[in-house]
Amino acid sequence: MNKRLTFHLIGNVVRLAGALMLLPLLVSLIYGGSDALPLLESMAITVAVGSALAFIRPRRETLRAREGFAVVAFSWILVSFFGGLPFYFSGYIPSLVDCFFETVSGFTTTGATIIPNVELLPKGLLFWRSFTHWAGGMGVLVLSLALIPKMGARSIHLMRAESPGPSTDKLVPRVANNAKILYEIYGGLSVIMVIALLLCGLNPYDALVHMFGAAGTGGFGTYANSIAHFNSAAVDIVTAIFMALFGVNFSLYYFVIRGNWKAALGNSEMKLYWAIMLGTTLIIAIDIMPTAAQNFYSISGVPAPPGNFFTALRYSFFQVSSVMTTTGYATADFNLWPQLSRGLLVAIMFIGASAGSTGGGIKVIRVQLLVKSMIRDIRRTVHPKSVNTIKLDGHTVDENILSGVQGFFFAYMIVLFASAIIIAKDGFSFETNFTAVVATLSNIGPGLGMVGPTGNFAAYSDASKLILSLCMLIGRLEVFPILMLFAPSAWRQ
Amino acid sequence: MNKRLTFHLIGNVVRLAGALMLLPLLVSLIYGGSDALPLLESMAITVAVGSALAFIRPRRETLRAREGFAVVAFSWILVSFFGGLPFYFSGYIPSLVDCFFETVSGFTTTGATIIPNVELLPKGLLFWRSFTHWAGGMGVLVLSLALIPKMGARSIHLMRAESPGPSTDKLVPRVANNAKILYEIYGGLSVIMVIALLLCGLNPYDALVHMFGAAGTGGFGTYANSIAHFNSAAVDIVTAIFMALFGVNFSLYYFVIRGNWKAALGNSEMKLYWAIMLGTTLIIAIDIMPTAAQNFYSISGVPAPPGNFFTALRYSFFQVSSVMTTTGYATADFNLWPQLSRGLLVAIMFIGASAGSTGGGIKVIRVQLLVKSMIRDIRRTVHPKSVNTIKLDGHTVDENILSGVQGFFFAYMIVLFASAIIIAKDGFSFETNFTAVVATLSNIGPGLGMVGPTGNFAAYSDASKLILSLCMLIGRLEVFPILMLFAPSAWRQ
Repeated sequence: MNKRLTFHLIGNVVRLAGALMLLPLLVSLIYGGSDALPLLESMAITVAVGSALAFIRPRRETLRAREGFAVVAFSWILVSFFGGLPFYFSGYIPSLVDCFFETVSGFTTTGATIIPNVELLPKGLLFWRSFTHWAGGMGVLVLSLALIPKMGARSIHLMRAESPGPSTDKLVPRVANNAKILYEIYGGLSVIMVIALLLCGLNPYDALVHMFGAAGTGGFGTYANSIAHFNSAAVDIVTAIFMALFGVNFSLYYFVIRGNWKAALGNSEMKLYWAIMLGTTLIIAIDIMPTAAQNFYSISGVPAPPGNFFTALRYSFFQVSSVMTTTGYATADFNLWPQLSRGLLVAIMFIGASAGSTGGGIKVIRVQLLVKSMIRDIRRTVHPKSVNTIKLDGHTVDENILSGVQGFFFAYMIVLFASAIIIAKDGFSFETNFTAVVATLSNIGPGLGMVGPTGNFAAYSDASKLILSLCMLIGRLEVFPILMLFAPSAWRQ
Repeated sequence: MNKRLTFHLIGNVVRLAGALMLLPLLVSLIYGGSDALPLLESMAITVAVGSALAFIRPRRETLRAREGFAVVAFSWILVSFFGGLPFYFSGYIPSLVDCFFETVSGFTTTGATIIPNVELLPKGLLFWRSFTHWAGGMGVLVLSLALIPKMGARSIHLMRAESPGPSTDKLVPRVANNAKILYEIYGGLSVIMVIALLLCGLNPYDALVHMFGAAGTGGFGTYANSIAHFNSAAVDIVTAIFMALFGVNFSLYYFVIRGNWKAALGNSEMKLYWAIMLGTTLIIAIDIMPTAAQNFYSISGVPAPPGNFFTALRYSFFQVSSVMTTTGYATADFNLWPQLSRGLLVAIMFIGASAGSTGGGIKVIRVQLLVKSMIRDIRRTVHPKSVNTIKLDGHTVDENILSGVQGFFFAYMIVLFASAIIIAKDGFSFETNFTAVVATLSNIGPGLGMVGPTGNFAAYSDASKLILSLCMLIGRLEVFPILMLFAPSAWRQ
C-alpha cells in the first residue's frame, strides 16, 4: 500500500469538502441565521485537516487498484465525519454518531434521517444537508477529479471505485475530461430543474434545495412532510419526472448531445428501466385507487380528494419514481398502502436505478444480466450441451462480468441479512429492520414501519446507526471498496 | 420430448404412491378409524391412473435431461394431487386446493399446514400425512429407483433432477444401487430413531409418526402443540439430535460404514454445518435466557420453568436444529422470541441443511461456495491481476459449478420476492408473507407472524396456496426442474 499517496489524495478530497462549506455559509449569512459560526468553525477545521493530509508528498506516484479503493473508502468516511461537524457545533444534533449518520446519509444520497422535525433547523444547515446530496450524487472523488486537474492525471482506478454499475464507460480517453463531461450534464439538468421548480412557484431557496435532493437522488428536504408540503400537482409531476431523469445513465445524455440518438434510445437498460417504472406505477395505481381517500395526503394532513384513477396515478408515479431512483421523497405515506403496493415498492428498492446515474440499488443492468443468466441456466437444464453466450445491446457479455455481477448480488444479500440480524438486537419489528437495511443499502432513505416516510431512524441504538451508516457506504460504493477494508491482504506491503 | 417414455415413467411413480397407501390403510384398520374407506378409494384411483399411464409403452428408450426433469416435476405434482385424495374423500379437508397444499407440503417435507387442529383427524389419515414426509425425504423418484429395478436402468438424469445439492455424488457406478444404499442408510437411521423414541416412553404409533417427520425433515406431527406436547426433555433432545443427523449428507454415513472415517470427518460442508448450528444455538440461548420464563412452553400451555442457561440451551438447540434442517417441529413458540433470535432463525431458514440430506434450503455447501467466491472477489479488488481458484476439501471447484451455484442463488431470491409480492394481495403482514415464502421455499413449514409455530396457512386465498405449493416444489426440486416447465424450448420436438 502506497500510504503517502493515499493520505495525499484523501487530504485533497477532505480539503475540497471543507471548501464546499462556503456555500451554506453564504446562505446562512444571507438569511442571518445562527448557524454561520458553527459552519465557519467546521470549515476551518476541515480545510486544516485536509491541507495537513494533502501536505504529505508521495514518494512514488503509482496508484494501483488497492490504493484507488482505499482512497475512495476513507475519503467518504472522513468527508462524512467532517461534514457532520456543523450539526454538532450548532447543537442541533447533540450526538456525534447521529451527525455522522446524517452526513453519510447526505453524501451517499440516501436521505435517511435521525431528525424528527427538520423544520426546526436553520436555513444554512439545511442547505448544507441537502447540498451533500448534490456533491455526493456523482461521487466526491469524481467531483475532485473534475475540479482538481492534477488529481485526474492519476488513474481510472479512482473513478472505477466510485462509479455505480458493473463496468465503467469511458466516454473520452482522459479520466479528468470524463469527469468534467459528466458534471456538465449533471449541472445542466440541475439548472433546468431549478427553473422548472421556480416556474411551479417555489421560492429560490426551496427550488435549489429540492433540486439538490432530486438530482443526487437523495431525498433530504426542508419540510417535515417532504414534497407533500407544497400540495401542488405541478411540483409533484416536475419532481417525479426529474427524479426519473436523474436515474438514467448519464452517458446516454452525452450520446444525445453528440447527436447519437440511436445509441441513446436503443439502450436496453434504459428501456427496461422505463418499463419497470411505468409497469409498477400502473399496478400500484390500480391497487391504491379504492383506498386512495384514506391514504393520500396523510403526510401533509390535508383532507384527501375523492379517489379517482388519475389521482391514484399521480401519487403512484411520484412514489415509484422516488423509490426506484432511490431518492426517497414522498407525497403520500406509502407505509399505509395495501400490502401488494408495499411489496412492489420493496422490490423496486432492490432493483434501483440505472448504472452511471446518481441512483443506488442493485441497478437495472445487473438485474437484467442476472435474469438473462437465469434464463440461460433454465435453457441448459433442458439442453445440457448447449453453449449460449449472453448478449446485451448486440455485444456478447464477458463471463467475468457476469460472474462479477452474480458475486455482487450475493455480497449484497449477505450484507443485507447480516445487518438486519445485528440491528434486530434493538428489538424493532422484522419489517422495520429489514426495510431499514434495504433503504440504507440501496441509498433510498425511508423504508416501511417505523422508518416509513413519516418516521425516522432516531430510535436505533448508536451501534445500529453505525451499522446502517456502513450499509449506506457499502451501497453507494457498491460493496467491494468497503468490504476490502476488512481484508488483511489489502494492508500488506 | 419423448412423451411416451415420460408418461410411462410418471405412471410407475404414481402407481407406487398408490401402493404406499396400503400402510395407512392397515393403520386405519388396526385403530378401527372412519378413514379406511376413503383411503381404499384413493388407493384404487391412484393405482388405476398410475397403471394406465405406465401401460403406455415407450417407442424409444432414450432418456435425455429434459425428459428426466419433466418426469420428476410431473411425478411430484401428480403424486401430491392423488396423495391428497384421502383427505378430500374423508371430508376432513373439504377443499381440493387445501388437500393439494397439505400433500405437497408432506411430500416436499415442508410441514406447512392448513389444518387448524390436527388432533381432530383419525389415525390412518395422520399416519399417511406424516408418511408422505418419509417417502418424499429421499425423493419419490429415488424411492422408485430403489424399488423398481428396471427403472434404474435408465439414467442418472432422474436422480440428478431430484437430488439436493450442486452436484450429484455417485457412490457406486449403478444408479439403482446408489438409490438402494441411500435408502438402507435412511432406513437404518429411521429404525434407530424409532427405538430411541420408544425408550423415551412414546407409544409405537407416536414414535413411528414422529420419526417420519424428523427423518424426512418434514415436521408434521399428530398434536396441535407439536413436540412440546410430550413435555419431556428426553424426547426433545433425542428428536433434536436425530433431526440434526438427518440434515447431514448421507454419503458421509456411507463412508463411515465403509470405514473411511477420514473422508467422513474431514468433510468441510459437515464441519461448517455443525459450526453454524452450534454457534446459532449458543447465541440464541444467551438471547432468550432472560425472557425464558415468558416464552417457553407457550405452545403447550404448561407453566414455564424458571429460566436458566441450560433450559434456554435445550429450547434453543431444538428450535435451531428443527429450523436449520428445515424440519419445522417446535417445542417453543419462537415467534414470541426476541428480534435477534427471530432474525437468526430466518437466516438459518435460508441456509438450510447439507446437500445429499433430506433437508431443504439453499444448502450449506452452496453458502460455503458463495462465501468463498465473495472472498475471492474482494481479493481481486485488491489484486486485480491475481488468478485464484476456489478449493473445497482439497479439490479445485469447477467454475461452471460456481456459476451454477450463483445462478441458483439469484433464481431462489427471484422466486422468493416474486411470490412474496403476489401473495401480498391477500393483505397479511410483510413479516407473515416474507417468512411464509421462505418457509415453503426452504421446505421448513412454520415461519413468523400468522404462519408461526402456533399458526397455520389456512387464511391464505386459494391462489396464494397454489403459489406457495409451487414454492414448496421449486424448493424441493431446487428451482430449475420446475422453472423448466415454463420454458417453451422444453416442449419443442
